[in-house]
Amino acid sequence: MIIAVKNSSDKVQVDNLIKWIKSKGLSVDISVGENTTVIGLVGDTSKIDIDLVRSMDIVEHVTRVQEPYKCANRKFHPEDSIIDVSGHKFGGNNFQIIAGPCSVETEKQIVDIAIACKKAGANLLRGGAFKPRTSPYSFQGLRETGIDLLLKAKQETGMPIVSEIMGVRHIDLFKDVDLVQIGARNMQNFELLKEVGKMNKPILLKRGLANTIEEWLMSAEYIMSEGNHNIILCERGIRTFEPLTRNTLDLSAIPLLKELTHLPIIVDPSHASGISRLVAPLSYASTTVGADGLMIEVHNDPPHALCDGAQAIRPEQFAVIVKNIDVMLPLVNKVRI
Amino acid sequence: MIIAVKNSSDKVQVDNLIKWIKSKGLSVDISVGENTTVIGLVGDTSKIDIDLVRSMDIVEHVTRVQEPYKCANRKFHPEDSIIDVSGHKFGGNNFQIIAGPCSVETEKQIVDIAIACKKAGANLLRGGAFKPRTSPYSFQGLRETGIDLLLKAKQETGMPIVSEIMGVRHIDLFKDVDLVQIGARNMQNFELLKEVGKMNKPILLKRGLANTIEEWLMSAEYIMSEGNHNIILCERGIRTFEPLTRNTLDLSAIPLLKELTHLPIIVDPSHASGISRLVAPLSYASTTVGADGLMIEVHNDPPHALCDGAQAIRPEQFAVIVKNIDVMLPLVNKVRI
Amino acid sequence: MIIAVKNSSDKVQVDNLIKWIKSKGLSVDISVGENTTVIGLVGDTSKIDIDLVRSMDIVEHVTRVQEPYKCANRKFHPEDSIIDVSGHKFGGNNFQIIAGPCSVETEKQIVDIAIACKKAGANLLRGGAFKPRTSPYSFQGLRETGIDLLLKAKQETGMPIVSEIMGVRHIDLFKDVDLVQIGARNMQNFELLKEVGKMNKPILLKRGLANTIEEWLMSAEYIMSEGNHNIILCERGIRTFEPLTRNTLDLSAIPLLKELTHLPIIVDPSHASGISRLVAPLSYASTTVGADGLMIEVHNDPPHALCDGAQAIRPEQFAVIVKNIDVMLPLVNKVRI
Amino acid sequence: MIIAVKNSSDKVQVDNLIKWIKSKGLSVDISVGENTTVIGLVGDTSKIDIDLVRSMDIVEHVTRVQEPYKCANRKFHPEDSIIDVSGHKFGGNNFQIIAGPCSVETEKQIVDIAIACKKAGANLLRGGAFKPRTSPYSFQGLRETGIDLLLKAKQETGMPIVSEIMGVRHIDLFKDVDLVQIGARNMQNFELLKEVGKMNKPILLKRGLANTIEEWLMSAEYIMSEGNHNIILCERGIRTFEPLTRNTLDLSAIPLLKELTHLPIIVDPSHASGISRLVAPLSYASTTVGADGLMIEVHNDPPHALCDGAQAIRPEQFAVIVKNIDVMLPLVNKVRI
Repeated sequence: MIIAVKNSSDKVQVDNLIKWIKSKGLSVDISVGENTTVIGLVGDTSKIDIDLVRSMDIVEHVTRVQEPYKCANRKFHPEDSIIDVSGHKFGGNNFQIIAGPCSVETEKQIVDIAIACKKAGANLLRGGAFKPRTSPYSFQGLRETGIDLLLKAKQETGMPIVSEIMGVRHIDLFKDVDLVQIGARNMQNFELLKEVGKMNKPILLKRGLANTIEEWLMSAEYIMSEGNHNIILCERGIRTFEPLTRNTLDLSAIPLLKELTHLPIIVDPSHASGISRLVAPLSYASTTVGADGLMIEVHNDPPHALCDGAQAIRPEQFAVIVKNIDVMLPLVNKVRI
Repeated sequence: MIIAVKNSSDKVQVDNLIKWIKSKGLSVDISVGENTTVIGLVGDTSKIDIDLVRSMDIVEHVTRVQEPYKCANRKFHPEDSIIDVSGHKFGGNNFQIIAGPCSVETEKQIVDIAIACKKAGANLLRGGAFKPRTSPYSFQGLRETGIDLLLKAKQETGMPIVSEIMGVRHIDLFKDVDLVQIGARNMQNFELLKEVGKMNKPILLKRGLANTIEEWLMSAEYIMSEGNHNIILCERGIRTFEPLTRNTLDLSAIPLLKELTHLPIIVDPSHASGISRLVAPLSYASTTVGADGLMIEVHNDPPHALCDGAQAIRPEQFAVIVKNIDVMLPLVNKVRI
Repeated sequence: MIIAVKNSSDKVQVDNLIKWIKSKGLSVDISVGENTTVIGLVGDTSKIDIDLVRSMDIVEHVTRVQEPYKCANRKFHPEDSIIDVSGHKFGGNNFQIIAGPCSVETEKQIVDIAIACKKAGANLLRGGAFKPRTSPYSFQGLRETGIDLLLKAKQETGMPIVSEIMGVRHIDLFKDVDLVQIGARNMQNFELLKEVGKMNKPILLKRGLANTIEEWLMSAEYIMSEGNHNIILCERGIRTFEPLTRNTLDLSAIPLLKELTHLPIIVDPSHASGISRLVAPLSYASTTVGADGLMIEVHNDPPHALCDGAQAIRPEQFAVIVKNIDVMLPLVNKVRI
Repeated sequence: MIIAVKNSSDKVQVDNLIKWIKSKGLSVDISVGENTTVIGLVGDTSKIDIDLVRSMDIVEHVTRVQEPYKCANRKFHPEDSIIDVSGHKFGGNNFQIIAGPCSVETEKQIVDIAIACKKAGANLLRGGAFKPRTSPYSFQGLRETGIDLLLKAKQETGMPIVSEIMGVRHIDLFKDVDLVQIGARNMQNFELLKEVGKMNKPILLKRGLANTIEEWLMSAEYIMSEGNHNIILCERGIRTFEPLTRNTLDLSAIPLLKELTHLPIIVDPSHASGISRLVAPLSYASTTVGADGLMIEVHNDPPHALCDGAQAIRPEQFAVIVKNIDVMLPLVNKVRI
């Protein structure tokens, strides 16, 4: 962190600032210029509140050189983290495909889709039991029952399951879910983040609709600071002014995150655009841009899906996508086992 | 809702769609044109999932004419709702000023500020006990203790208190808080919304950083659909590309909301910009644009505030703002008692 | 400007950087820390290309302390600029109201509206002759004829006229227009900015739909750097994700600009929201937030206006707004003569 | 277009509206419902001003079913347009790579880069002669001289050249430029669009920083409505709240545009992120998402480039990218000759 202090400042106040910085366990480099005195902070500045420093009258400008996240930072953990989800590895040169319906509806539905997805080549099964819906009048998911049905599909197919958790009271219900998802709307539900940070389970952390990459990594940091370092990030589109797609998929985030963090990053091309016809091309783009996997919505009867039908594809379309991805993987030095 | 169906569609599918609509308790107006058949839905369409309809192959276009919220809709409740917070009325021609620090720090701090705010003319006291912070390493609030200290300040000054709730497990701690705030980051924490919907207490619902006005009203609808109709909305700035202010205060939202809903709306000019020098002019603008009140951060020692110090003003500055607002209120036909 | 250089850098490269900075007429403050060497640039850094510095391998971080604009900067011109438009003063404690139709349509139309606006209290007359329309099939304005009709209305009422210029080839047509407007879509049409910078006329520079405050001031700087310092800024809403209003009026920009620049700033509440019912409350908010004036669309027959009818108000509604504004002006220490 | 009229409306006004629609050469389908009368417009509605209809008092809701663009619309031109740029074909199953420096600086510089780019596999040469810079103090390009130097590089290498036009006065200077670029900031400079619409030359139309896909196609329509149908679109990133990348590359736009229009679309991965390390992965993603080509900034000495150095890559890095793209092209059924 570099703090520029006006030279017109009261010397006592400047000394107080320096004393306060040192009290945080940091040392300082001071450079007195013509108009400005520059204070460089040496040490771990992740615990310094930059807004507090900025608010001080004597401070003209403050800028962070170091990132405010530590556990998630590649600087302090140069190798890729490999996250193991019930035998399926995310990160490094591994690639995984998660597939399944938006919502779990009936036992037959989820088992049928699970079998179809597995046959088409999927590695893990997704399915929504608890559904975050904008309207209280929309279908909210089968909740507990939905988890039970997912577990049946897992039993039937052997595929690990991925499902979204929406509240701290449901932690126990997720003890057999292989990968616990934090949805976009809960990315900054800090009470929930702390709670899953205490779980001994891999977490799939989706990016919030209007959250920066740095805020996203800070939410990963929340989970990691509680002890759980098994985090997979998931880009799913951000909110912009463009009305033709539901969100704007930010694929630049993938190679950028690869520099900033050691955590694996997958892409959800289904929710991003909200248009099923875009799922295939966005899956290919996500693969070649360097993602560690994909999460794709597949439904065996899209027009009757209870939610988000517009973005789901059928198993036969999904099978084509998987085949094409498998051809592309060697070009980006990835394998799918 | 108006659904345009392609005339090239299979007649059986169109009939199925019409049957499905009728099964939801709605009637239909059908108009067969040259290229398109237009189906007008008559009745309460708030329970129809527009995304599901859009996803159907035979549908060319679907558009909602009615708003998807009902309890919050002014059409069905033409008079302003008046929300009573321990004797202080929000809505109608009433105007209220809430003031206090970002965070509760010590008993002396909160009591001193409370006294200063009251003297300057504030009607209610705000103070953060549970603090949603981007970083796990930033001060997270005094939590339970913070609520206790707020209650002491209430006892000392008689001012009703406003504080933010962050999780369903803390509901009981808020039983003596007069106005329970849902923060911007939790605006779509649906499990929490349902829970406060069961409280017998007024709720202050802040707009999410990247949420549309319609989504905001749908979150109010979540609370109302559980039985709690005592909601006050709070505009606090939205996320845009402009970097000089932390958020962009959306004052157009105020008169627009006055048309769409009967609920009162106040403005938080402190968090919006993150710059203390903008608090006064934005407070005046909020007043004359038609808001029902203000929530202003006041601190007796801003540079040492434990959080958000940059946006807080001192009690003497706050007193000037209050005086100026009181001159403006008659011009917008409001009173502050 | 503060440049942080990695200590692992080649010494020769660092020396080259310092030499290059000095060759630009600047001096440097160097501070060698444990991990980083901080170079502070002393002097006028507005001619240093920050992106170029950022791209250098040895540079870890670079941050601008000084603003990149000079002529428009209040630091170098602390008093408010007063811009005289044919006897009407903008800036300081003056307030001006510009009113008129979106487009000039017929002589009778523009003269009738001009008379009505004057009677209602407007100070200047606006009218579009050249119209920037998204579609080539929409009405493009009467062009040359439109300017002629505006001049007739000026003759009839004595009101100075304001109209938008869209291209460098039309400069001569605007020689009798009192205030020449650069529209939002041309805010970064740099060839046009340079050309109006050579005019001996006040320029009304609207903010671009997606331009930052700094970019806006840089566009003012383009005009000023050619010699024309008679610039009035006009906030008219920015593009955000909110669909209910056409744009989001950024009123925080007004007090912020008052700190950054000495140029007057007015607000256009009509284009911002695109909803006529919001014009009155947004006009009041603009006045109390500290703007130097307003530009309001007024039409004598809104449903038949050839463009932007949805946002125009009738003369009798405009008269009420003017009356209310005149009551508010003393509260913000402004006068309208 | 579907217009919903309130049943409480004056019958005379509704009849007037219908008469007005018919006077535009359209026929109507009318459906009288319980609360609303729905008027469906049959025929070419691209000349109907939707904002005007929306502003009418009797209109409750209006929605466009047909797109407002016609020449650019795939519905009326189902086959891909193939645009020939001096023998290089864009569109269909063709793929083209444009490469070169941000700015032309000296004859040696541009000729050296042109030779290096050709050797690495580029098909066309780009180079900026007229540079749109945010600051009037930044390098503005060599202008006329820059065009001359590009023509020398073309003579030397045989590569067709691409360069940006910034104003209507420079049309004649571009008579030997093979592909004339309209930059992002001029995407809605309608006077310039009309002028290049009269040129007998292919136009490369970049998307504006904050423009929707529909507005972009309307700008193409401006050029086409003047007679020039040789347009290539270029996605280059949109403005969002994310600060780590300069812009957010919107790759979902590519497959979506393939449905909406018959015009070819290329991607500029260099300007989008502003980070040279992201050029390779974003180039691969653009290829597999279905783009018809790429425009990549290449510089032989990035740290000393006069502008945008941070995003340029060196020829040897560019050669690797080209090699990888050529492996990917068969997977998306494209060829590069």
